[in-house]
Amino acid sequence: MDTKKQNRRRFLKEGAALAGMAVGAIGSASAQTPGAEASPVPYRDRRAYGRRSRFVNSVRTNDDDATHAAFGRSFNVYTPLQDSIGIITPSSLHWVSAHGYEPPDIDPQEHRLMIHGMVDRPLIFTLEELKRLPFVSRIYYLECQANRPEYKGETVQQSHGKTACSEWTGVPLSLLLQEAGVQSGAGWIVSEGDEAGKMTKSIPMAKVMEDVLVAYGQNGEPVRPENGYPLRLVVPGFEAIYSMKWLRRIKVVDRPYLGYKEISRYTRDDSRSSWFQFEMGPKSVITFPSGGQRLPSRGYYQITGLAWSGGGAIRRVEVSTDGGRTWKDAELQGPALRLAHTRFNMAWKWNGEQTVLLSRCTDELGQVQPSLAEFARFWGATSEQFLSRSARGAGHSNSIQPWGVNRDGSVYNAIS
Amino acid sequence: MDTKKQNRRRFLKEGAALAGMAVGAIGSASAQTPGAEASPVPYRDRRAYGRRSRFVNSVRTNDDDATHAAFGRSFNVYTPLQDSIGIITPSSLHWVSAHGYEPPDIDPQEHRLMIHGMVDRPLIFTLEELKRLPFVSRIYYLECQANRPEYKGETVQQSHGKTACSEWTGVPLSLLLQEAGVQSGAGWIVSEGDEAGKMTKSIPMAKVMEDVLVAYGQNGEPVRPENGYPLRLVVPGFEAIYSMKWLRRIKVVDRPYLGYKEISRYTRDDSRSSWFQFEMGPKSVITFPSGGQRLPSRGYYQITGLAWSGGGAIRRVEVSTDGGRTWKDAELQGPALRLAHTRFNMAWKWNGEQTVLLSRCTDELGQVQPSLAEFARFWGATSEQFLSRSARGAGHSNSIQPWGVNRDGSVYNAIS
Repeated sequence: MDTKKQNRRRFLKEGAALAGMAVGAIGSASAQTPGAEASPVPYRDRRAYGRRSRFVNSVRTNDDDATHAAFGRSFNVYTPLQDSIGIITPSSLHWVSAHGYEPPDIDPQEHRLMIHGMVDRPLIFTLEELKRLPFVSRIYYLECQANRPEYKGETVQQSHGKTACSEWTGVPLSLLLQEAGVQSGAGWIVSEGDEAGKMTKSIPMAKVMEDVLVAYGQNGEPVRPENGYPLRLVVPGFEAIYSMKWLRRIKVVDRPYLGYKEISRYTRDDSRSSWFQFEMGPKSVITFPSGGQRLPSRGYYQITGLAWSGGGAIRRVEVSTDGGRTWKDAELQGPALRLAHTRFNMAWKWNGEQTVLLSRCTDELGQVQPSLAEFARFWGATSEQFLSRSARGAGHSNSIQPWGVNRDGSVYNAIS
Repeated sequence: MDTKKQNRRRFLKEGAALAGMAVGAIGSASAQTPGAEASPVPYRDRRAYGRRSRFVNSVRTNDDDATHAAFGRSFNVYTPLQDSIGIITPSSLHWVSAHGYEPPDIDPQEHRLMIHGMVDRPLIFTLEELKRLPFVSRIYYLECQANRPEYKGETVQQSHGKTACSEWTGVPLSLLLQEAGVQSGAGWIVSEGDEAGKMTKSIPMAKVMEDVLVAYGQNGEPVRPENGYPLRLVVPGFEAIYSMKWLRRIKVVDRPYLGYKEISRYTRDDSRSSWFQFEMGPKSVITFPSGGQRLPSRGYYQITGLAWSGGGAIRRVEVSTDGGRTWKDAELQGPALRLAHTRFNMAWKWNGEQTVLLSRCTDELGQVQPSLAEFARFWGATSEQFLSRSARGAGHSNSIQPWGVNRDGSVYNAIS
């Protein structure tokens, strides 16, 4: 505490000339979808349900925007992490990876959740019935396994924008299964959502009984349509593909099942990869300054970013402002919750020279975020193979993200 | 932990017939503003910035809605707490108490924050300059001092809806003042916002140096227009009127100042009340079941509500399901953060008889939420005087809220 205060005072002493200085716009080069929030909202509606300022225009987008310009060929958009603050992702900006085009338009009165298979009492729940049961709210991140730094996005939205963090509210699945009565020999569940993609995912019973939620709430409201309204399975720490949207069926089974999509798209038939991957490794990324942004002048900045791990809580984040030669502990913003995004901050005085910024996190299991070279080596490949997309097999990627800073203050993706 | 698990199992055993039962809609009788979310949003805009399902229609409203039907005579709306889940209030549903009609339409490029008065170096900050400084994010509730249970709202939105809880992000005001250099003898600040009401509020320096924020972020986005965009002072635990919206000026002074509004509207000239009131006392309310809702049948329900205190963290919430004869500890949902809403839950089996539900909280200072009679006695008045609005002087009210349950399952405000 004393150390923190001292750092702050030192910061201020050196930064005394900060106020009143001419500061250019800290702009973002990320493509923005035109038309967002453009339609005028009647005053009465804004009073009933508030909107953003017309000067705020941060939006979800992706790198295929040109191709999908007219209507969107898929609902596949990334969270604008370059604008993120705190740990809660606004539901309106939660990334979406969906195989279908538009989310299903589900009437909650008509929706049912069936629990069947190796249970004593198969059950069918309406939404109102589920809401009468004991529930919990937990702040958890979700991340798509395709959130791959080595695909070289220009901005942090493109390189890391397939993750978000929300307060999820719902019924523990363990409670529903206890009510149904799980039969001996049942070791897995298979979940099914109400979507065109016909996804099913198998989850081991140990995880189900630990912390899986049947969620109907997201950030204090019903789950948003593109995130699974009215019901989403939330499997914290696992690849987000396990967190089934538009959840309608859970089958208790004796062994993992592979559905249509798993066989056609998600199985891995090379000897190097594992069939089932669940937990995401420890991962962090600096969100400011990040690719496409520009530092208007030399001087003080607050480096900030997010860290998370499928292994539990984040214990430490180190930041390097000299391309990895030296590292300093960043300040973690509390509460650093288990399986949630954790914000880290570090004051930095930029001297105007070219450099590279890095962040590296450690989780409560002691797992350390690897460099791209270490990550590639683990999978029996080279960095180059991953960068050229010729190496396959790594289900999820958590390598260290380097952001280069040019002398003109422009920031670029320095991965190599 | 073991106890919790056991409770859960017992709940399930007794509630085994729950699934498959016929359940009517758990409806709310609160007035809803028509037209909210009615305007169709183009698919492309919803993709860029998500919207709620068209089946979700929870809105901010107030009990003067009929009067203010056409355009709204003031921007004064309450949070629909009857629909609340978790602890984060969606920014779109954050209650608003404003003296003006529409929030000012501030261009962030033009906005400035001036710090002057008894300081060595008066400072003027642009928004971009503020964002380069060290910042923190904290989950804090805000509550209007006019959030008065004894005004007998029909619904919890009307009785308690002038409170909300957000993740606020901003620069500690202490840091800005250290940079400006506070002169000896300065003991207070006066803040001023850019609004028609010309509000100013005096805050003692001890509080300023402890945890006051100059906030630009709310729930991961810029602060919403009606909550102070682009800058809001956040004074956690104090009456929300201190959390100045559209903040543009902070003057460091030697003693508290009373501005135009304070003298004309907020001073108290009777001998019983204090001139300056800051901290809100410990307060809790059951949000389900609450006034205007209806229990569709006897059987199991999850009683849930919110507790908060200007004194710090909530340590305990007790619930009575028999009008106060017996009390049981509710389960607090972690993390129970300092100066934040804290969710409490308790399973309850309704036997179909008439009863009254109550909640009572205790904060980390040991302060216990009073009954209305105790509260009135403290202010030298009677419950009746408060209920008839003839007793004045109590700046904020935190008495226990009773919800009556009729045999037909309808829930009503039983305050008396």
